[in-house]
Amino acid sequence: MGRRVVVIGGDAAGGSAASQAKKRQPDLDVVMFERGRATSYSACGIPYWISGAVETESSLVARTPAQHRAAGIDVRMRTEVVGIDLDRRVVRWRGLEDGGEGTEPFDDLVYATGSVPMRPPVPGIDAAGVYGVQVLDDGAALRTELDDGSVRRVVVVGGGYIGLEIAEACRVRGLEVTVVDLSATPVGTFDPDVGATIADAVRAEGIELVLSDGVAAIEVGSDGRACAVVTASGRELPADLVVLGLGVRPNVQLAREAGIPIGTSGGVAVDARMRTGIDGVWAAGDCVESWHRLSGQRVVVALGTHANKQGRVAGINIGGGYATFPGVIGTAITKICDWEAARTGLSSTEAEAAGYSFVTAWVDSTTKAGYFPGASPIRVKMIAERRSGRLLGAQIVGREGAAKRIDALAICIWNEMGVDEILSLDLSYAPPFAPVWDPVLIAARKAFEAVEADVRKL
Amino acid sequence: MGRRVVVIGGDAAGGSAASQAKKRQPDLDVVMFERGRATSYSACGIPYWISGAVETESSLVARTPAQHRAAGIDVRMRTEVVGIDLDRRVVRWRGLEDGGEGTEPFDDLVYATGSVPMRPPVPGIDAAGVYGVQVLDDGAALRTELDDGSVRRVVVVGGGYIGLEIAEACRVRGLEVTVVDLSATPVGTFDPDVGATIADAVRAEGIELVLSDGVAAIEVGSDGRACAVVTASGRELPADLVVLGLGVRPNVQLAREAGIPIGTSGGVAVDARMRTGIDGVWAAGDCVESWHRLSGQRVVVALGTHANKQGRVAGINIGGGYATFPGVIGTAITKICDWEAARTGLSSTEAEAAGYSFVTAWVDSTTKAGYFPGASPIRVKMIAERRSGRLLGAQIVGREGAAKRIDALAICIWNEMGVDEILSLDLSYAPPFAPVWDPVLIAARKAFEAVEADVRKL
Repeated sequence: MGRRVVVIGGDAAGGSAASQAKKRQPDLDVVMFERGRATSYSACGIPYWISGAVETESSLVARTPAQHRAAGIDVRMRTEVVGIDLDRRVVRWRGLEDGGEGTEPFDDLVYATGSVPMRPPVPGIDAAGVYGVQVLDDGAALRTELDDGSVRRVVVVGGGYIGLEIAEACRVRGLEVTVVDLSATPVGTFDPDVGATIADAVRAEGIELVLSDGVAAIEVGSDGRACAVVTASGRELPADLVVLGLGVRPNVQLAREAGIPIGTSGGVAVDARMRTGIDGVWAAGDCVESWHRLSGQRVVVALGTHANKQGRVAGINIGGGYATFPGVIGTAITKICDWEAARTGLSSTEAEAAGYSFVTAWVDSTTKAGYFPGASPIRVKMIAERRSGRLLGAQIVGREGAAKRIDALAICIWNEMGVDEILSLDLSYAPPFAPVWDPVLIAARKAFEAVEADVRKL
Repeated sequence: MGRRVVVIGGDAAGGSAASQAKKRQPDLDVVMFERGRATSYSACGIPYWISGAVETESSLVARTPAQHRAAGIDVRMRTEVVGIDLDRRVVRWRGLEDGGEGTEPFDDLVYATGSVPMRPPVPGIDAAGVYGVQVLDDGAALRTELDDGSVRRVVVVGGGYIGLEIAEACRVRGLEVTVVDLSATPVGTFDPDVGATIADAVRAEGIELVLSDGVAAIEVGSDGRACAVVTASGRELPADLVVLGLGVRPNVQLAREAGIPIGTSGGVAVDARMRTGIDGVWAAGDCVESWHRLSGQRVVVALGTHANKQGRVAGINIGGGYATFPGVIGTAITKICDWEAARTGLSSTEAEAAGYSFVTAWVDSTTKAGYFPGASPIRVKMIAERRSGRLLGAQIVGREGAAKRIDALAICIWNEMGVDEILSLDLSYAPPFAPVWDPVLIAARKAFEAVEADVRKL
């Protein structure tokens, strides 16, 4: 028998790890367990499938079980791993359809169990009509319910990326939508001034925002279904359907039970090659913690792009190659109705928490030359370290063509550039694409002026 | 009398220099000479004004003479500087309207004369109906002629950025357009494979391309107007109007006559602070040469974005501050019909000329997640140094949302990143903005694989 690799979880991280390992070393026996009905799908695409922008569930699947099998991977669908025995080097599994049970031995193990949605511990949270949106099957259930036509009012709990994306999806379907969030502005990973712009955009779309308020209970009707959300301040929000969009936490239960070390942030601890603290046990994706290159802290960031990269790194290393995952800097992007918002590096709050002292600057400009048809508003905000002028963070909000500019600033941060050098960068210019000073460069100019002004005060 | 600054040329570079110097040091006497009818305008916007996408000439003007005067700058419109006397430190000028002449003394001089269009030395080149498109007045003349309605067939000489933009503008106006270019593919600053894609896009728009052929003569009718272009291969292309889009060369005649040193590339030689070889004489914009950070050569790049930055640097330094222009890396972007194309760093030809040995890789992907509505094709090509994997150049061609991604790669090149590190970058991901592996990251993966494959061959 050849060397055996067992992969727990068949989505982005697990699927990538399995594919890369098998590709690099075709004589490996690779067994991949997936408890759901799909492999390697885009969870981030679920809101757009719910809205109808994406028509079929299968569009979201990058690689089917059959495609994985054709690549030589032994895929076990609807099969849940229920235990890991590190001494005997076996996993115990249970078939979710037939109730069958068994064990599978491994030489290498990839732990790629993803995340679980946060569920506030309030009365009624487990009632019918309360949905998480985490895996493809959740999306399918939610869509079936919405297609049924009896839902008119939706309350979304949580105003982060997923919460707002789901809210927009329901609004697109013509439903009355209310979003409840504890923060004073939605998407708390943005600074409040940027968040306020997002709030305006959301409200302009006809979505009601209930901010600085939490969920105290979910009322359940006589039919056993959720019928309203009661907030901490005592408001009662009628709901035919409640969607939880509070974010996720790493799914580490199996790892913890088995004795695989968990990091300070709550994710499985891994090194740059995605090795856990246990020899031959790897982990990747939403269940692990990553090194944040600016704060120096370990953080959990559940994003498909990281999961894919980390899975690839684990797979290459298992397959005898060498690859590392160099950490994250907190880049994120979202489309909210006709608005786009993105961030990278540290927000003001995060920069403070990390101990940085900084100045901020922002500019309102246009995505194309101001005179060019289709020029859209864009606001770029920068957070630069005092004295050094090093760019610590950036946020962009605007309309079409605005937010993807965040990548340029992410790379500036990655390379620890100062705003004085950034303002001189040779970025692309032509009227259909940018003003002669790209908004990103103007923001850097303003940030540099703020750094200089701050120095003069000393 | 205070310190006097004379600025020759009132467009992007001259206008920025004058504004910055006056802003930093309000007691400076700043005199700015401009021979045209406008200051601080967007020459890059002229094609879109010709097409009608931009409605009014005034939209293209960022700062009018009146605005400059309100900022305390003594603007002399329609006044040409005809000589520089470095010993006496005066410029000689001539009024183009009234024929008046005089001299103006200076302590500091800013040479910002821009560029002049290339004119092939062929018979008929000076006939009526042959237009350059260089300054706003050229655009006005061309527009007047097209508005007249008697033009049906246009031949554009030169298939570079400006040539194609003008060709598209004429096509948008419903004219028959033919572009003649010496190269086998248009926009010769792109590699031929990318150029071929651009050629397809241009032809699909109904523009005829005559490639690998030059202009031998312009035929002139009995009315003294150009009536056809005769190519080197003997083709006769009937034309009611001929537009020269062959690019530009630095306007250094006055500088040369005065003894201001000209560099190897043909532009005025300047250091990082935009100082020429003559004490107190500065230069900025299309008339200067810049340091190319990859080739190490001095190059002339006529682009409004550089002109603005260089003018700002000169102005800050004249005003007693400190600023430098750190050079260029050859970033450029253009919209051609519904296609977008961009480049940064070195093309294959340029990399060879600079002595680099390299591998190339490219990928076809989509601008958004493949399943997301509006996902457009994008091709990303990378040129990476052998062994080191350092990114030397990148080219992007695609439809809406494709080309501005070049900025991310420009910053990678600026920071001398290797493709192995680039593929791990924390770039923004959400389905409306990118596939889970951004095309830029996939291209880096492919380039890294090419670097590895090349190493194994050694």
